[in-house]
Formats: sequence, C-alpha cells, structure tokens
Amino acid sequence: MLPAAFTLPALARYIASGGSPVAIAAEALRRIKAWGDPALFLARVPAEAVLARAEALAAEGKRGRPLFGLPFVVKDNIDCAGLPTTAACPDYAYQPASDSPAVARLLAAGAVLLGKVNLDQFATGLNGTRSPHGTPRNPVVPDCIPGGSSSGSATAVAAGIAAFSLGTDTAGSGRVPAMVNNIVGLKPSLGLVPTLGVVPACRSLDCISIFALAVEDAATVLEVMAGPEREDRYSRPAPAGWRAVPAPQPHWRLAAPLVEQLVFDTPADAALYEAALARAGGPVARVDIAPFLAIARRLYDGAWVAERTAALRGMVTERPGSLHPVTRGILEAGLDKRTIDAWDDLDAAAEARRLARRLFEGIDALILPTAPGTPALADLAAEPVAANSRLGTYTNFVNICDLAALAVPAGFRPDGRPFGITLVGPAFAEARLAGLGARLHASAGVGLGALGGAVPAPSAPPALAPGELPLLAIG
Amino acid sequence: MLPAAFTLPALARYIASGGSPVAIAAEALRRIKAWGDPALFLARVPAEAVLARAEALAAEGKRGRPLFGLPFVVKDNIDCAGLPTTAACPDYAYQPASDSPAVARLLAAGAVLLGKVNLDQFATGLNGTRSPHGTPRNPVVPDCIPGGSSSGSATAVAAGIAAFSLGTDTAGSGRVPAMVNNIVGLKPSLGLVPTLGVVPACRSLDCISIFALAVEDAATVLEVMAGPEREDRYSRPAPAGWRAVPAPQPHWRLAAPLVEQLVFDTPADAALYEAALARAGGPVARVDIAPFLAIARRLYDGAWVAERTAALRGMVTERPGSLHPVTRGILEAGLDKRTIDAWDDLDAAAEARRLARRLFEGIDALILPTAPGTPALADLAAEPVAANSRLGTYTNFVNICDLAALAVPAGFRPDGRPFGITLVGPAFAEARLAGLGARLHASAGVGLGALGGAVPAPSAPPALAPGELPLLAIG
Repeated sequence: MLPAAFTLPALARYIASGGSPVAIAAEALRRIKAWGDPALFLARVPAEAVLARAEALAAEGKRGRPLFGLPFVVKDNIDCAGLPTTAACPDYAYQPASDSPAVARLLAAGAVLLGKVNLDQFATGLNGTRSPHGTPRNPVVPDCIPGGSSSGSATAVAAGIAAFSLGTDTAGSGRVPAMVNNIVGLKPSLGLVPTLGVVPACRSLDCISIFALAVEDAATVLEVMAGPEREDRYSRPAPAGWRAVPAPQPHWRLAAPLVEQLVFDTPADAALYEAALARAGGPVARVDIAPFLAIARRLYDGAWVAERTAALRGMVTERPGSLHPVTRGILEAGLDKRTIDAWDDLDAAAEARRLARRLFEGIDALILPTAPGTPALADLAAEPVAANSRLGTYTNFVNICDLAALAVPAGFRPDGRPFGITLVGPAFAEARLAGLGARLHASAGVGLGALGGAVPAPSAPPALAPGELPLLAIG
Repeated sequence: MLPAAFTLPALARYIASGGSPVAIAAEALRRIKAWGDPALFLARVPAEAVLARAEALAAEGKRGRPLFGLPFVVKDNIDCAGLPTTAACPDYAYQPASDSPAVARLLAAGAVLLGKVNLDQFATGLNGTRSPHGTPRNPVVPDCIPGGSSSGSATAVAAGIAAFSLGTDTAGSGRVPAMVNNIVGLKPSLGLVPTLGVVPACRSLDCISIFALAVEDAATVLEVMAGPEREDRYSRPAPAGWRAVPAPQPHWRLAAPLVEQLVFDTPADAALYEAALARAGGPVARVDIAPFLAIARRLYDGAWVAERTAALRGMVTERPGSLHPVTRGILEAGLDKRTIDAWDDLDAAAEARRLARRLFEGIDALILPTAPGTPALADLAAEPVAANSRLGTYTNFVNICDLAALAVPAGFRPDGRPFGITLVGPAFAEARLAGLGARLHASAGVGLGALGGAVPAPSAPPALAPGELPLLAIG
C-alpha cells in the first residue's frame, strides 16, 4: 500500500514489495490536485509526462538508483530543461537549454520531476510572501507564513506531494521554511553541490538546499547531488571521506549561544529551544556568537546586497517595474555601494571565517534556533522588511562563514506554531550534523510535516560526551 | 673561509668547518658599508645588536636550526619588533608591538636580521623607483631599475649582503625584482605563509615572498615560514605532504603561452625565453593564456585597486600629500569604484581560478617570461605608469588565480641586461616548481646575483616526459 508519508524508506519498501513508480507518480498528481494551492507551482510537468517518466522507470527497473521513482519539485530559480526558469519574476523568464547539474544528477538517480515551485522573487526574502504569484499555503499552520525564499519547495514536502525538493540557500532560505513547515532542511557546504544553472542571488554564497520529511532522506539526496562540476566556477571538491549520511557521535562536543544572545518570539519558543538542548543528551557549552551576529548584519547592509544587484543589474536598471516592490527596494539599495566599503565587508568575512574555524576546533556542532519563531502572515504584511530580517537572526551568517547547517523540527508551541533548531558545523561536516539531527528529530515528539506519522528512528544512535564542557571564548 | 656568495650550503659548510655566525654577521655588516647604497635600508638593526645576536647564536650552537647564522633583510612593509614599519611612507610609520609571524619563525630558526629595506611605497609598483627614499641601486646593471615593489629585498641579496630576504607579492613584486637582479624569487601559495603583520596592499592577494641566490635556499626558507597561524584570517593549511624543497620530476608536462601572446622588449629577450624552453629538456605544449591576461587587466582597473585604497583609506582621504605622487594617483582611483562592478571582477576571478584548475589538470607547470625585459631607469622616468604596467604582463594574474610561482634567472642579453623565467603551478605546488626551477637555473649559464660563482647543481636531477604534448584548450 502506498505510504501516507513519502519518506525514502517507506517508498523503497513499497517498491520492494511490488509497488510501481507509476502508482507513486499517480498519487503525487492526485495530491497536487487535492492540495489545490494555486500559488504552489509556477510550472508543472504535464501529468502525462510525469506518468510516462514513471512508466519508463518501471520498465527499466531500479538498477541500483537511490532515488528510484521518488517524486520531487524544484524551486523556480534552478534550471530544469523543458520548463521556464522565472525566479518568480515573469519578465525575467528564460527557457534553459539543459538541466542544472544538480537536477541532472537527481534524474539520473531515478527521481521524477513534478514541476517548478514558487519562491520569494529572486530568492530575496525568508518569508514566502514576496511573489507576484501569491503566497504558498503553509500546510501545518495555514495562517502562518510558508517561509522563504524556498516557499513552494518546503510546502510541497510538508503537504506530502513531493518526497523531497530543492531549494536554494544564501542567507537561510533553505532553513527557515523547514522550521515553519515542520520538516527537515539541509544547507550543504559552499561548492559541494554545483550551482551552475541557478539564478544567482549572491553567487559567492549561494547553495542548492534540500527539503525532506526526515534527516536521512535529505542526506541521501545530498549524496546524489554532491561533487565537483568542471564547468562550475564555484564548485569545489569535498575532502576525502566526506559523506552526508548520518555518522555516529560517540563523544561530540555541543554548544549553544550565550543566553543573553538569544531572542525568541514567545516564551514558548524559548522553552522549545531549551528542551531541544536538554534532549541533546549531554552538556552543552555556551559560546559567544557575537562575531557571527555582527557579520550577519553586513549581509543585508553591505557588499552582498550589491552582489545581488550585480547579478540582476539589467532588471534593476532597465525594468525595475517588473520587480516585486520589496525586492526592488532591496536590489536598488545595492546600486550605489562603494567598493572600498565592500572590501571592509569581505575582510570582516575573512575574519568571521577564521573565528568560525577556531570555534569548531573546540566544538563539533552549534545548536541554534532556526528562527526566533514562526510569524503569522499578518505579521509580515505589517512589517515586510523588519519581520523578514528577524527571521534571519540565526541563519544569515552561516554561508558567509563557510559552514554547513541542518534544520530539524523541535516541537510545537501551545498555539500550534512549529519551532525548529538548526545544527551548524564546519564545511563538509554534513554527516556529523545528520547524525545528531536524526536523533534530535526523533526525540522531538513531532510528526512528519503536516502528515503526522512517526519520525524514523535514527539508524546509528549517537552518544554524547559525558562531563562538563567549558565556556569557549571566540576572538 | 667565508664564502663570497652567501648561499645556504656555503654558509652551512663554513659553520660546520668551525666558522662562527659572528664572522658571518661581521662580513654582512662590512658588505653593507662597502655597498654604500643610501637608498637600500630604511632602518638598520644597530651593528652592535647584530653582532650580539650572532654571538648569542654562537654561544648556543646550531641546535638543528635550519637558518642558523644566516643574515637576512626584510621589506619595510613587514613588522619586525624594535624597528618602525613605514611601507616607505614616513607619515605612515608605526612601531610594531611584535614580529610578524613569518619573521618570528625565521628568527626562531636562527636567522640574523640586518634591517628593513626600501620598497615601492605601499608595495604599489613593480619597478622600485616609487619611494621617497630614492631608488635602490641594481647591483647587476646599475643603469636599470632594481624592480619593485620589493626593490631593496632583491638588491640586498644580489649584492651579497643578505643570504635571503623577505619581499611581498600581490601582483609580481616578488618576481620582477628577482629577474632584474639575476636572483631567485619564490611567490608562495596564498595563505601558506601568514601575512599577519604585513601592511596590506590587497589583503586577499598579498603573499610574503622570498629572494635568494639559489632555488633550494628559497625553498628552505619557505619551509621555515610556512604553516597556518591561528590569528591570521588569510592563513590556510597546506595539504598533507606539502613540501617546498625540490621534488624530482620524472614525467612533468610543461607548457608555454601561444607564441602570439608573448611580448618582449627586444629580440634578445625573446631568444633567451625560447632558449629556456629548449633547456626544459622536453616538449613544451603551447596553451592559450588569454583568460589569464584578461583577469590581469582587472587587477589595476577594477575591484583590487579599491582593495588597496580600502586598506589605506585614512592616508588617501586625510593625508594625500604624504603619498608618493604616482602611488597617490593609483590609490585615489579606487575611491569611487562601485561594488556592483567589483562583483563582476570577483566573479571573473572565480572563473579564472576555474580555468587555472583546468589548465593544471593537463600540465604540471607553465613556463612564462618573468617580464618582457629589464627596463632602464630612464624608461621608467619617461613612462612611470605604462612602463610599470608592462612589467606585470606575466605576473599580475598569478595571485588572483590562486597559483604559486618561482622566478629564476635565464641569462643575459648582449647588452648585459638580465632576463628571467617564471614557473607557475597550482597552489601548494612549490616543490614541483623548485625541482624544475633548480634545473633550469643551473643550466642558464649565469652566476649568482651580481656575485658570480656557480649556480648549485640541483640535488635531484629531474627528467621530463618523452613524446609530443598536445595543444591544450582552456575555456
């Protein structure tokens, strides 16, 4: 029988017991219709083409392909051959000549593309309301934001339509939507997944990210997509022995920010965060994250704003009326920044990366709130920029500091809004984060997305270091 | 007996046969006086302090220190405790609290500091005439430039005063002076030697470089200085197995630019270059270096000009009259660059690094002229900017492309002016370059600096690949 939750193990068991990719595809198409969100898809693969692809796969057989028959959706700033790429800006639309390398690798692994989904225009935003196509509906808490910029990618997974999805993440766009949709969001290390064929936000910081119902599912998808691409100038090789699938954690050293550096929307959010730290199963050191909060402030006020503008300067200077008003304001702010100030930002970024390297000499993972809380749609309407900035409190610095991150659900407030935590580690520490994340997800007392169903038990139960951990100094 | 040429092996033999560091130091002091160039030193370690240091070393004994008793000089944009750092701008002077890590490592290895030497102000220039303290005298061809910006560092070695010296290299300042002084210049990989305590030119591109009479001497000095420094934001670890000392080269694949991409001052310079390629001992592929020449043009016309300005903005905006007129003009050009254009440059740099990675998948070293020729002092006086730019033809792109380089002498024109070649390889390929460079230096038919004396035979005679090599395409 088809599983309610499209986790990778559940679908693999279904196929192993005689189920067909065609039935999975048909069910995904049925769920799209049942979900009925006109703001979700910006371009669909025609139903007959989806079924034809599944039939071809069924005829071929699995042939060892790790994503065999899995339906997925792609954020509409990533090229998929045969569908337009628009970045949620109709006047920007182009027909890509080929799949982005990441998508090509997923298709080669047997995955079934359903279509391209909505986003905050040009991936600029963390809330999901900055699209001319409307705001995708949050399947978990309909009066709340879907998160952004990867809004459709997250809601499609939480609603049970896609087994996984691709987002992008420059400042948190692959993590905030995971929290507010009660799913997993994996932001890989810079350069690990090729970004060729992605509409640039900040080219030097952009990552393709993964949404899934469970940690191990996201890790499996990452392993399929990871690896250098010769034509990609931002691609870089992973160190030998790199893996994404969960590593055991016999004696991991964990840390959290100083208490006075934490902000939350409500005491209930704070309580869920502290409960997550307690569930980590051992002592958690408190570390000063002030240098990282400082570099984050430069992301929307310094050189990197102009990096967005530079990549889209034709739109900004020649067709500003084609832009979402909030996005236009942000991009126009980049036009007259001075290069001498940009170098101050880049030098500060080098220093922040140094401090991050030092931090992670002493700890294995930093446990952060993913965001201070899940805002309502009304909150964003009232304060479209300030409320958005607040969502990035704990996410903005991660890419600048060359770190990897994994967002996992961490429970629900009494009013039903989801809360989440993000595990941050050094570049290429995805396996470590996945090991800890799978355990914390399984112990969070949550269901999968909006679907319910038990979170899979982690396959390698981790153990944590006994004894006290010191307060670590950064600087 | 004290050797005429202060090579490392000669001085080591002298000490092993009973000679004292005190006699070496006294001889270095005598040579400073005999050379009598008032434009060489900007600050001396007092003679009695030099001798006291040598006496202390003699009392301690060698204790395995690889630079035991070796006299050296340091470019005056690198901090040495007890001496002012001025970058050849008297109004910029400060008293550093401590040695830069690179200098500290040399002192810990037993080297004896003689003083701080002249440079093109703020390391901006490749010719050596841009200093308010005058132009250091070229010991090989007195009517020619000493090269820059590391002018004094190169002439002190060529004149036989220092066994080695430190320069810096952002765009060729560690290579051009080597050529025009008939010595060796080693430009290490970015981040291999800490740049903490260096007056920034372009922080993201700056390297501390080494001048020496022979390739293996430079490699030995590099091994002493190399390695991460926790406090240095631009430091990075070398890969396991990294070495600087010459590696054997059983089957190395060599390349040179397309013939039509080569420019020389005279046919004699061209002939010396072609002769060097012939001495390489095997086929040399011709490769298209157009992408690298293109990124080099951005170095003095784009984002990186503003990086220099950003690092010195206090001088440029508040005390412009304290700057050398040519330097002032260059630095002021950085003030009004726009960040959106800088990102185009940075993106182009990422692409150039990608193309460099691809190039060095197919070849082991690129053999370039170090410069089109050695200009006379009168040439620079006539065209202070254009003649300087021409000197950087083959050096400007190397740091932007994250490459290592080694400049070695390649003979003399009939009019007595020196010519040189530069071996370029990927980051951390110093040992490979040193292996090839030692061989090409030994076969060049030149003496050491202005001293004469035979170039040491390479300790590991290299062999080259037989057979034809294809023309490699980049792009």
